[in-house]
Amino acid sequence: MPELRHDPIQKRWVIIATERGRRPSDFVRLEPEQSSGFCPFDEGNEDKTPPEVLALRPENTKPNTPGWAVRVVPNKFPALRIEGELDRAGEGIYDKMNGIGAHEVVIESPQHDLNLGDQPIEHFQKIMQVYQMRLKDLKKDTRFRYILIFKNQGVTAGASLAHPHTQIIATPVTPRTVAMELESARQHYELKERCLFCDILKQELEQGDRIVTQVDGMVAYTPFASRFPFEVFVTPIEHSHDFAELTDKGLLALSRCMKDVLARLKGALNDPPYNFMLHTSPNTKSQARRSTYWTSLPYDFHWHFEIIPRLVRIAGFEWGTGFYINPTPPEEAARYLREVEIT
Amino acid sequence: MPELRHDPIQKRWVIIATERGRRPSDFVRLEPEQSSGFCPFDEGNEDKTPPEVLALRPENTKPNTPGWAVRVVPNKFPALRIEGELDRAGEGIYDKMNGIGAHEVVIESPQHDLNLGDQPIEHFQKIMQVYQMRLKDLKKDTRFRYILIFKNQGVTAGASLAHPHTQIIATPVTPRTVAMELESARQHYELKERCLFCDILKQELEQGDRIVTQVDGMVAYTPFASRFPFEVFVTPIEHSHDFAELTDKGLLALSRCMKDVLARLKGALNDPPYNFMLHTSPNTKSQARRSTYWTSLPYDFHWHFEIIPRLVRIAGFEWGTGFYINPTPPEEAARYLREVEIT
Repeated sequence: MPELRHDPIQKRWVIIATERGRRPSDFVRLEPEQSSGFCPFDEGNEDKTPPEVLALRPENTKPNTPGWAVRVVPNKFPALRIEGELDRAGEGIYDKMNGIGAHEVVIESPQHDLNLGDQPIEHFQKIMQVYQMRLKDLKKDTRFRYILIFKNQGVTAGASLAHPHTQIIATPVTPRTVAMELESARQHYELKERCLFCDILKQELEQGDRIVTQVDGMVAYTPFASRFPFEVFVTPIEHSHDFAELTDKGLLALSRCMKDVLARLKGALNDPPYNFMLHTSPNTKSQARRSTYWTSLPYDFHWHFEIIPRLVRIAGFEWGTGFYINPTPPEEAARYLREVEIT
Repeated sequence: MPELRHDPIQKRWVIIATERGRRPSDFVRLEPEQSSGFCPFDEGNEDKTPPEVLALRPENTKPNTPGWAVRVVPNKFPALRIEGELDRAGEGIYDKMNGIGAHEVVIESPQHDLNLGDQPIEHFQKIMQVYQMRLKDLKKDTRFRYILIFKNQGVTAGASLAHPHTQIIATPVTPRTVAMELESARQHYELKERCLFCDILKQELEQGDRIVTQVDGMVAYTPFASRFPFEVFVTPIEHSHDFAELTDKGLLALSRCMKDVLARLKGALNDPPYNFMLHTSPNTKSQARRSTYWTSLPYDFHWHFEIIPRLVRIAGFEWGTGFYINPTPPEEAARYLREVEIT
């Protein structure tokens, strides 16, 4: 059983995958495994993945057969296990929990070589819709406090399979980065009775120099204190704490905006590897909602996607400090991205 | 002038290197620059670096000439600038500061190909001594709140020059990771009147399964909630908040312990790339010591080196959450490292 362990110094949870126990010889090189030509995510190989959790498919097709448009399956090598009750325990000064959680893969389309940014807008919207459906469904499980949706595009960004896919991990704790954002949003709201993100967006829209694009009420901008070159946030201009509540019209607007940003990054940076992740409010139905990690209902939060092109290596300074050196001012990154010609 | 910017959501400072303004075409590939065979850190090339700040050299040799054992020079492409007064300002909802700081390079020896772990113990101790001398000297500058000493070994770990070197960055803010540790240590002390790190060490020494090695009062262990496979902390068993106060005897013990750990990592993991960084108490002479980042004198802190072999890629999940998945339980990592035969 994997284990969740709490670092009493950094106040951070870590997943220790106790079952896999990787030996030193497993770490010889960082290179990706050579492709054998076989892909378990291709159409026709549905029996090579665990049985599907969800698929957008015609009504006359059976589960785990060809014909699907978007397909969600459990991860074959999950970081957390779905079965069991949460069990918290101490170990002297330390705290731990059994590694309960969900780990799923969204196979974005049957096409092996079609990257997310190149999907037609109708299909892009279907993928976003699937994110939302899984988010809603996983929130029904009261063991899960947070559901993280994230994508690794390209080997440098951590993708182990080339077939375009997104991952979903549901955890019994709110991850530290999100907890920090929730806390900042709460503090700002208590002081000013305004949303921190709405205040930031107001200033960004007035200043304009960090805006990348605006589409139907969605905005993409490079954050004032960007950690990485060409980091972009995509978020609704109108306040909304929960991505699960986005309407179909909103999903279409989001898809248009995200597709626009991905095309600009591709054009400006020669199809870079990237990560993106959704930050949205935690599960309000969670058993453990009164933890130190989350002290109020998160209506003061504002959901957003964070897109990070993987252009620079992270070295000791960043690891040692959580303090980043960014060689590209976000105003210049935004200007480059605005000026890219997209077709 | 570089700029320090504060992220109001993540409460983190970022260095924006506004002078370099890297364009999209600068990021074509992550590969290191090809070596031209010329190394500015080699003996005889002293005039190819900025003038030395410090060097261990015989009394009959002149600065910036051959003959030195360890040499410290300003970084030719510094992330922060040494000249000027600190200037804090707002920009609407945001906060910023001019990018004042020091950025130095410790050239560990004249030998181009001799890695730190392979240095004879006498030379290893000299390098540690130089760290301490620079730390003491930089602390005299009241503009600097924190001095970070860190090493990138190998291209994967972020090293841009092959000649073994360590970097030192002095900053006018306490970096978030260290601030979090200081805060945890303070909270623990207020509650229990004991040092958090001492309590952890006591348990580790009793349990024993995460201990890698012990040398003359220094201990190396794999942390309970290790973020990365084979992560190792090296620290004095006896309480000490400030690395600058370590005696010569202590420096020798530290050198023996660090060298032992580096040899074990090399043996177990086939000479892996790694980062290490020193976490020690901030500058108590700093102008700005009453910030939210640092609320008490740090005598409750406990200095330590964090050594992180770079064996796994950091993917979207980690970036998105600050929540790590570690495939190797620290107990197993410690056991492998204990069992390595070192010569």
